[in-house]
Amino acid sequence: MTDLHIADVRVTPIAFADPPLLNNAGCHQPFALRSIIEVETEDGVVGLGESYGAAAVVEGIKAAGAAMVGRKVTDLNALWAAAQGGGRTEGYTGAEAVVPRVVAAIEVAMWDALGKATGQRVVDLLGGQVRERVPFSAYLFYKFGAHADGTTDDWGEALTPEGLVEQARKMVIQNGFKAIKLKAGVLEPEEEIAGLEALRAAFPDAPLRIDPNGGWTVETTLKLLPRLTGLVEYLEDPTAGLSENAQVQAATDIPLATNMYVVENAHLPSNMAQDAFRVILSDHHYWGGLMACRQLAHICDLWGLGLGMHSNSHLGISLAAMTHLAAATRNLTYDCDTHQPWQVDEVIEGGKLAFEGGSLAVPEGPGLGVTLDREALARLNQNYLACGYTKRDDATEMRKHWPDWTFGRPKF
Amino acid sequence: MTDLHIADVRVTPIAFADPPLLNNAGCHQPFALRSIIEVETEDGVVGLGESYGAAAVVEGIKAAGAAMVGRKVTDLNALWAAAQGGGRTEGYTGAEAVVPRVVAAIEVAMWDALGKATGQRVVDLLGGQVRERVPFSAYLFYKFGAHADGTTDDWGEALTPEGLVEQARKMVIQNGFKAIKLKAGVLEPEEEIAGLEALRAAFPDAPLRIDPNGGWTVETTLKLLPRLTGLVEYLEDPTAGLSENAQVQAATDIPLATNMYVVENAHLPSNMAQDAFRVILSDHHYWGGLMACRQLAHICDLWGLGLGMHSNSHLGISLAAMTHLAAATRNLTYDCDTHQPWQVDEVIEGGKLAFEGGSLAVPEGPGLGVTLDREALARLNQNYLACGYTKRDDATEMRKHWPDWTFGRPKF
Repeated sequence: MTDLHIADVRVTPIAFADPPLLNNAGCHQPFALRSIIEVETEDGVVGLGESYGAAAVVEGIKAAGAAMVGRKVTDLNALWAAAQGGGRTEGYTGAEAVVPRVVAAIEVAMWDALGKATGQRVVDLLGGQVRERVPFSAYLFYKFGAHADGTTDDWGEALTPEGLVEQARKMVIQNGFKAIKLKAGVLEPEEEIAGLEALRAAFPDAPLRIDPNGGWTVETTLKLLPRLTGLVEYLEDPTAGLSENAQVQAATDIPLATNMYVVENAHLPSNMAQDAFRVILSDHHYWGGLMACRQLAHICDLWGLGLGMHSNSHLGISLAAMTHLAAATRNLTYDCDTHQPWQVDEVIEGGKLAFEGGSLAVPEGPGLGVTLDREALARLNQNYLACGYTKRDDATEMRKHWPDWTFGRPKF
Repeated sequence: MTDLHIADVRVTPIAFADPPLLNNAGCHQPFALRSIIEVETEDGVVGLGESYGAAAVVEGIKAAGAAMVGRKVTDLNALWAAAQGGGRTEGYTGAEAVVPRVVAAIEVAMWDALGKATGQRVVDLLGGQVRERVPFSAYLFYKFGAHADGTTDDWGEALTPEGLVEQARKMVIQNGFKAIKLKAGVLEPEEEIAGLEALRAAFPDAPLRIDPNGGWTVETTLKLLPRLTGLVEYLEDPTAGLSENAQVQAATDIPLATNMYVVENAHLPSNMAQDAFRVILSDHHYWGGLMACRQLAHICDLWGLGLGMHSNSHLGISLAAMTHLAAATRNLTYDCDTHQPWQVDEVIEGGKLAFEGGSLAVPEGPGLGVTLDREALARLNQNYLACGYTKRDDATEMRKHWPDWTFGRPKF
């Protein structure tokens, strides 16, 4: 029988090119950080994971990974205990937030290793495939035409309703997405709603979403509700704070969705008690991995909450994991988010997974069904060393474009 | 690689000798019904399960088992869908109650098959072992000295405080249990509390529990609370109904535990909203299997509820599954219940698993680590055919002893 004990856990920080996308916190930097995790068993099977690249998380992965040597790739209980070991928390709200990120990074690689060692796909190990293909959505951003350092991209500027529609057409033509999400909290709310209305006119049947990232006050949100009603399938994190969003939810039938205020297990009971958010946008990278998200889906099912999937800038290992997870989750009620169309780099062999009709087939196994492109890994690691970033800083980047810009949450 | 597709699902109803144990619903019959499930893969690996033997469940297992042929032993999503197919529900509160029982019966055998096929223990597949040994409790019953048909047993009569203490001494000497549970709801509540006080005097350090099975009124329970305070570690289902028990919980710091009013997923949200029960006594046989109980444990953890484990009359396959599950569950907060000391029959090779110091080691794998004794299976199946029972009926049995006995819930 295969030996499932872990012999080694490696983590390689990487950086990949990212366009100047805007959000409530500022502007994406020229490089996005990420980490690639390899869990190797005593038999030499290597499982892959992909996670955040901020130093706090990378160091946490190293520490927990070392503690997992000698454990089996099935030992999720030991992994949670190992991640409790602690470490740096800069840029995070506390140790609670780093722990599930560290667990998730290693956990996905453990599932991949288990799948490869036993000849099973991850979707099967997570309970079985319930949908042939996983639908994703078009993720639109206000954006500058070029980075402050002059770097351009294929997408061009989008700071008006017309720019958004053009961006959406390009993304939909290339990928076939059905649902469209607009990252907001950047311009005056009235302008952003006008952008959404322009998208409605251009895509009459597309389910629409808007995500101000907590950038609107309760008062502003309440004032905007009549224009949003019938326009969006859900309203994501309109204002800042759980009870503040609960005030909004009490005033509307539009389901409120979140990836900001119910982002770990401990937040669930108070969300249920307050009826704050009716849709959870799960993300295995910060909820603690694939099994944690299966458990989250179960809780959403029991409490009658909708379930979607959140995304950060990511590459193909993450996308494969998201696809396996979504394919195993019966009560996934909304098309998943993905930043993948914004990326030009890739770390898996064969290049970026291709959307067809806005959806992805589950990569054929075993494991996640993707292979590490070690040449690309080395190149992206060089990017990481060269760019010198240790964490994401959208605010500083934003002020290179708009020197008077100030952060506010809520802001408008 | 091993072929994990299911080739066949077999279920064999059995009956084993059971002593005349009393509870709020009546008296145990001379035979308890059970079913043994075998899930065989295309490669000829056989996984074992054990469940209820009532006709409604056995027929549900047959139907769902047939639908699972061709699916993988990992496909829990397909299993839940297959069990929704329906079937008979006699003796159950509705289709909702039969479905998780059917799922659980087959699910355990699927985990055992997966473990055997991949060389892994079930405890490892459930997330990893967190305790060396699993502690169980002494489960005391008021009982008659013989069945109405004259059949006797080694335990003798126990209808007084002295009889209970004698029963407890014997059970503790044989098994080393630390905690003691008294099945109540049989005699006048004052007499039962006297029994509990006699146990306290005889076992000064034993955590005590009492379970009237909903047999007391709210008024009676409130009146008894002062005597129970400091005497029991939890009070199990004192009265009938969720909101009625919530009334009791509001009046006491003794945690209320349940295996009657929060017995399926759909009951959890209202329990949390009402703060009715603070301890859930999980039971993989009716919650939908081992993974369902892992999810339940996660929910108990998040909402700050205690977690124990309920038992029905069972044999060694169930006990092995309970032990693997408990060993993988970090937040198991109370010693598990088991009826095993009351049984003389066994269906696994090597006979009954032996408690040491009140606890069990996890059977060594692969799978559940137990093997079916086919000679015993044939004999117990003959018992089933001979006894003619199709469901449990404690009330009719009780009236053979006490003709004027009437069922009441609450009764006292």
